[in-house]
Amino acid sequence: MRVQHHNEVPANEVTMEGAAGCRVRWLIGEGDKPPNFAMREFEVAPGGHTPRHFHDYEHEVFVLAGNGVVVDGDQERPLKQGDVIFVAPNDVHQFRNTGSEPMRFLCLIPNSATGKNVTVVPECGCEMV
Amino acid sequence: MRVQHHNEVPANEVTMEGAAGCRVRWLIGEGDKPPNFAMREFEVAPGGHTPRHFHDYEHEVFVLAGNGVVVDGDQERPLKQGDVIFVAPNDVHQFRNTGSEPMRFLCLIPNSATGKNVTVVPECGCEMV
Repeated sequence: MRVQHHNEVPANEVTMEGAAGCRVRWLIGEGDKPPNFAMREFEVAPGGHTPRHFHDYEHEVFVLAGNGVVVDGDQERPLKQGDVIFVAPNDVHQFRNTGSEPMRFLCLIPNSATGKNVTVVPECGCEMV
Repeated sequence: MRVQHHNEVPANEVTMEGAAGCRVRWLIGEGDKPPNFAMREFEVAPGGHTPRHFHDYEHEVFVLAGNGVVVDGDQERPLKQGDVIFVAPNDVHQFRNTGSEPMRFLCLIPNSATGKNVTVVPECGCEMV
């Protein structure tokens, strides 16, 4: 068993294309050798966002703090503390902080996500030509 | 994609042997057909506890509110908001609320846990004869 406060886990800038003002903590990841899935925490600064993207694996998300929206295909859905989001495989999604405080959420992924392709979708919602 | 506040998910009493004052919400479970794992939220009343038990699958836990301890084999480790606990397969574990407010935590399990054997361990730590 491992017990650790989330703030003790190092936070790293998310450098993926399309991300802005995002940091990630791998709360339960490689070091624990979790058999099936990993727990990450994202912290998005006011005005920041994750990439608008999709992939063939799911996310299970719990909003810990802050206010924002999740882009669900072409619509924006408001988010607040305590909201739970199931992002099914291949759902286009993006988390945006529209508030004045950091938005923090847990986002869990299966181990099978490792090395899988992620497709970033243009912000305008139209295809690049 | 499904978005729902956690308080909108029905809470059910945990009736498993060894549990006291525990309710569970299946935040992401069967209805979503999550491909790999499920997200549950437990709420333990002051003085309440989950069973002291073990099983051959892992837990990934995040403490949302309250104060308590996690029994890790024969020792008790204090818990507070923001603590992350990785319970490895076959770790004997129990969550106890030692505070005056409800203790709430997320506890995720792999789909492969369904139907698996869970062994409840006597509270005294000695074998039943």
